[in-house]
Amino acid sequence: MGFLSSRVFKWICWLSVVAAFFLIGFLIGWFARPTQSARSDGPSHAVLQEFLDEMQAENIRQHLRKFTRLPHLAGTEQNLRLAERIRDEWLRYGLDSAEIVHYDVLLSYPNETKPNYISVVDDAGNEVFNSSLSEPVPEGYEDVPNIVPPYSAFSAKGQPEGDMVYVNYGRTEDFFLLQRDMGVNCSGKIVIARYGKIFRGNKVKNAILAGAKGIILFSDPADYCAPGVRPYPDGWNLPGGGAQRGNVLNLNGAGDPLTPGYPAKEYTYRYRTDEGAGLPSIPVHPIGYNDAAVLLRNMGGQIPPNNWKGDLNVSYRIGPGFADGLANRKVRMNIHTINRVTRIYNVIGKIRGAVEPDRYIILGGHRDAWVFGGIDPSTGAAVVHETVRSAGTLVGRGWRPRRTIIFASWDAEEFGLLGSTEWAEEHAKILQERAVAYINADSAIEGMYTLRVDCVPSLHTLVYDVTKKVLASRALVSAISKLGSGSDFEAYFIRLGIASGRARYTKNTKTEKYSSYPVYHSVYETFELVERFYDPSFRKLLAVAQVRGALVLRLADSPLLPLDCTEYADALAKYARAIAEAARKHPDELLEYRVSFDALFSAVDNFTAAATSFHERLRTLDLTNAMEVRMANDQLMYLERAFVDPLGLPGRPFYRHIIFAPSSHNKYAGESFPGIYDALFDIQNAPRPDKAWEEVKRQISIAAFTVHAAAMTLNPTA
Amino acid sequence: MGFLSSRVFKWICWLSVVAAFFLIGFLIGWFARPTQSARSDGPSHAVLQEFLDEMQAENIRQHLRKFTRLPHLAGTEQNLRLAERIRDEWLRYGLDSAEIVHYDVLLSYPNETKPNYISVVDDAGNEVFNSSLSEPVPEGYEDVPNIVPPYSAFSAKGQPEGDMVYVNYGRTEDFFLLQRDMGVNCSGKIVIARYGKIFRGNKVKNAILAGAKGIILFSDPADYCAPGVRPYPDGWNLPGGGAQRGNVLNLNGAGDPLTPGYPAKEYTYRYRTDEGAGLPSIPVHPIGYNDAAVLLRNMGGQIPPNNWKGDLNVSYRIGPGFADGLANRKVRMNIHTINRVTRIYNVIGKIRGAVEPDRYIILGGHRDAWVFGGIDPSTGAAVVHETVRSAGTLVGRGWRPRRTIIFASWDAEEFGLLGSTEWAEEHAKILQERAVAYINADSAIEGMYTLRVDCVPSLHTLVYDVTKKVLASRALVSAISKLGSGSDFEAYFIRLGIASGRARYTKNTKTEKYSSYPVYHSVYETFELVERFYDPSFRKLLAVAQVRGALVLRLADSPLLPLDCTEYADALAKYARAIAEAARKHPDELLEYRVSFDALFSAVDNFTAAATSFHERLRTLDLTNAMEVRMANDQLMYLERAFVDPLGLPGRPFYRHIIFAPSSHNKYAGESFPGIYDALFDIQNAPRPDKAWEEVKRQISIAAFTVHAAAMTLNPTA
Repeated sequence: MGFLSSRVFKWICWLSVVAAFFLIGFLIGWFARPTQSARSDGPSHAVLQEFLDEMQAENIRQHLRKFTRLPHLAGTEQNLRLAERIRDEWLRYGLDSAEIVHYDVLLSYPNETKPNYISVVDDAGNEVFNSSLSEPVPEGYEDVPNIVPPYSAFSAKGQPEGDMVYVNYGRTEDFFLLQRDMGVNCSGKIVIARYGKIFRGNKVKNAILAGAKGIILFSDPADYCAPGVRPYPDGWNLPGGGAQRGNVLNLNGAGDPLTPGYPAKEYTYRYRTDEGAGLPSIPVHPIGYNDAAVLLRNMGGQIPPNNWKGDLNVSYRIGPGFADGLANRKVRMNIHTINRVTRIYNVIGKIRGAVEPDRYIILGGHRDAWVFGGIDPSTGAAVVHETVRSAGTLVGRGWRPRRTIIFASWDAEEFGLLGSTEWAEEHAKILQERAVAYINADSAIEGMYTLRVDCVPSLHTLVYDVTKKVLASRALVSAISKLGSGSDFEAYFIRLGIASGRARYTKNTKTEKYSSYPVYHSVYETFELVERFYDPSFRKLLAVAQVRGALVLRLADSPLLPLDCTEYADALAKYARAIAEAARKHPDELLEYRVSFDALFSAVDNFTAAATSFHERLRTLDLTNAMEVRMANDQLMYLERAFVDPLGLPGRPFYRHIIFAPSSHNKYAGESFPGIYDALFDIQNAPRPDKAWEEVKRQISIAAFTVHAAAMTLNPTA
Repeated sequence: MGFLSSRVFKWICWLSVVAAFFLIGFLIGWFARPTQSARSDGPSHAVLQEFLDEMQAENIRQHLRKFTRLPHLAGTEQNLRLAERIRDEWLRYGLDSAEIVHYDVLLSYPNETKPNYISVVDDAGNEVFNSSLSEPVPEGYEDVPNIVPPYSAFSAKGQPEGDMVYVNYGRTEDFFLLQRDMGVNCSGKIVIARYGKIFRGNKVKNAILAGAKGIILFSDPADYCAPGVRPYPDGWNLPGGGAQRGNVLNLNGAGDPLTPGYPAKEYTYRYRTDEGAGLPSIPVHPIGYNDAAVLLRNMGGQIPPNNWKGDLNVSYRIGPGFADGLANRKVRMNIHTINRVTRIYNVIGKIRGAVEPDRYIILGGHRDAWVFGGIDPSTGAAVVHETVRSAGTLVGRGWRPRRTIIFASWDAEEFGLLGSTEWAEEHAKILQERAVAYINADSAIEGMYTLRVDCVPSLHTLVYDVTKKVLASRALVSAISKLGSGSDFEAYFIRLGIASGRARYTKNTKTEKYSSYPVYHSVYETFELVERFYDPSFRKLLAVAQVRGALVLRLADSPLLPLDCTEYADALAKYARAIAEAARKHPDELLEYRVSFDALFSAVDNFTAAATSFHERLRTLDLTNAMEVRMANDQLMYLERAFVDPLGLPGRPFYRHIIFAPSSHNKYAGESFPGIYDALFDIQNAPRPDKAWEEVKRQISIAAFTVHAAAMTLNPTA
């Protein structure tokens, strides 16, 4: 080898080395460069843990303590002060923004100079009995001002007088039995119904339909006392002097009665009160079981079936009117409640998303309470507060979620979900386009047995994941149920079609048969009720906070949305079978009117296939491709929207979810395929069966169409 | 310098070189790596030019020739064959897919054994005059089968007989004048109205409201003959034996009358025909001016105002009935038209988008014709065909648009926009979420003067750009106008809120006063009509093809959507001023009922500010950031959606666009702020002015809310 070749060889070596380093440099440069979705490394386990660990039971206790010292009735000074305090604290906790948003809505208050009460009058017109004007105030709260007495918000004014009829729970089936089988006519009567089983507004509507001129609502011990438990303050049962406040509207999702469909802003046209949505046309008033016993004791008329009898020491005779000897006595309602347009205040806090600021996860719950709101809503509000504090702390440490998180403290929920609905109405367009999910945060506890989650099917998988993590055992979630209504998720879910869920501690519904929790909406909902009986360690509330919070965080921070369409497919299949099964109670009519559920089953099959192949596609999705991830997430987000029909359910334009909505007969209970459900329900009393069955067929067709349309949204090339 | 240091120095040199190469490699690697949006290099000028150059006038001529040899009435075998041919050719041209989608909708045909006609009967019951049963067929088409005679589709059946009343154009104002000022009662009469000014369905509705038991529609030479032009085939005027077919529905966007709101599929519930949407309750029939002259010649009654007189050599007396001496003669309508559920066929072709396959640009126009469809719709269909051919050719060369392009050949437009509306109903959810724009392609020419574009304000800037490019002079676009209705964009624009536009060659509306084009919907709409008179070189049609095509391509291929929100702001400001000005005709009532437009003006100001800052933000947008581009495009796409109110306009649930919709009094004319417009219109004849003004206030409030909501969608952090 000569000098030259040796030199050449040396140069070649050097060049190779240089080239190799160049190549190494190039490759490192190539792969080091972040592409758009390099952030798609998943919702950091560490962040979630940090977020959950930051929440403390003791803090929740303190939040609850401060939220329950005074009454916070919607529309009052005190509730505005609380809004301001919450806003200030949220800002201090580290949210990017927190602001108060107001609306001017129709509220309803007792007349301060003319109390509401029920009386028994003798034939000389003397009031021989008057119901109590207020509840005995619990110890320690004697000097608290502004405790509103029990009343039925939005009751019509009036002093109707007449014979009374006992109508059990005032359900549609109760009135059917009464009028059809017992031959009792409620027209022109004052009816008395026990609380429980269904939303009180439905009882009022049924009474009006039956022709009653007034309705008294009472809490029966059978429904508001747990066996072996003492009345508050010695236990958590309802005392005999307690009564349940509540609104008696039939809004069906309309929000403010004077501005249905539109936000109650300065520029908004308002209907006159007599044109308002959902307002009852007759007086309504609630009483406790001490007063109820007096009214019921001397009733005449038929003896009712056994399942109409509560736990009072009376015969529960139907009436009309009092028994012989007292038949001249009448019942008179004295109702002077006033409806008034009043300003309410939501608090809206935000953490801006780092990657997709235009995608929203909402955690919302109400702040207004009938009195102290010990359980309802302040356990929920305290949980939200601690969630905000924890999230704000993480933001302070430099973290930011992928998507925007919105926290809401709603006002005037007790008056018909007004604060949440007006905000939904004002922001409907951007919510429809951008909202991924809504997690509701009303009362966080209503029993001591187990965690209960109600949510859309696409959240099932996430809920199992999250509760397993938070509770360390999936078995502790007793059940995942359907969403009904009666809380602030309504406008977001049933009107706008945003995937929604709620979580709370609840009783054992199999063994605990009382309605709701006994002191619900009474003055006895205090901080002490929770601290002494429901959750002395505040660990149940912490678990609820962590479940709600983890749902929000996973939804806000996962690159790929944790929504499961195959769970929706399973649910649709189950519910389609159930509704078809229900129709099979009428085999002859199904034949005669040629009613078939085949179209629905076929649509569900179509949906199931689409969901399966959608999730197969997800498995091979390139998570580093920002556009592909966004497109898949859009499909996941919009799936729930696909179940909304802009034409609404029959006669209920603001209930638009074809798969889940309350039945027309009970706002609290979520029904699947509510259009079909109601049409089948109406068969029972239809003057024209052919028409009624036509409606069943129409509703099946709408359901089938909706499921087909939803399947289409899962097809990327539809 | 010792040996060591020299060696060290040498090594340092070498290391530096190696390090430098590594660094260079790294940097090249770093910057060579494409990030997600490297494709955002803009809609290639070259591609657009190639696309436009590919289209040929001669091809359009040939497409028109083959589309117009036979009648293609919706629901006929011939129109299905044409659908199949179009599908096959689209596939051959290079689309990714092309398929036929069917619906079963209510159509309407003359009874083949009992012809429709109008007669004059004497007092012995003899028919002393009968209107012609068909139009004289143009030369060369004598042997063509299946030419449907002139009829009013969906007319009620019946043989009403009675005195006739001449109602001018049958507009609301004509009936006002007639009934209020002239004291003529139309109840129980057969009214005769001339075609023109408003949609024929509105004339029929007005006649029904006035109590008429039948309505005859005729083409007056004043409205269907241009001065100095000879009747076809020697010119392009309507011959005396020609008559205008057309549907007489009042669908207000419902689509198939039996399945309003839902696609007319196998699983869909159908109303009975007597429950159908928009069906007239009285017989209707169209006649030409030869027959009209006979009917009108002997009319009695008052002499009308001069502007009620057409160009026939008759006095245009109002009636009711014939003049003295002939007063015993009556007019009898003999109408046997049959409504029948019939299968129709859309052709849907697609080019899948390369980057955002889930974003759609739609180019759609109808295929069905009353007879040969020489102008309506085949000039449009020929233009679409050539557009598809050109786009397919580019796809064959390896090009693919950023977004998906959908081409549609709609069926049964003539029967109430049925094909396009049913497809919109079936695909409503994915269209709402994914459709960027809809470009309509009905008749491409209806005059010889200039190009006319009707579109949403956000398309104005693009339209100017495109027409300047295609026509080499912006001045050639006479005007950009508001969209009305009467063609297939209706469901996409007015129901779903998809940005829409249409372009066609038109007459000089300032000097050419006849209605539409003279032979509209007659048998004289032939290929020869276009080739001899309207566009012998086919260059006008080519220009229309290029404008429509360029709009589609720019929308489909620009990384940032070419939509301009500030143009929308300008339009809103202009229209708000105009509607407020219109209200000022009633200064006293504005005061008395406290009607103010301030809320609307303030909303428009808010929108203007939002639009301005949105476009400022766009200027600094990082076009290489895929997520940011997608977010901005989503805002641009969803802006139009924000103007849709799910509650619809009063009494018209399928007309949901609050800014643009036809007035209730004329489907053809697009009104701005149609809710306010109609409420103000109704003031004229309101039995309760206070109620009518309340409605004006309510509509102003809804408009203000809608504009505020739209402004919010332009705010990225709302």
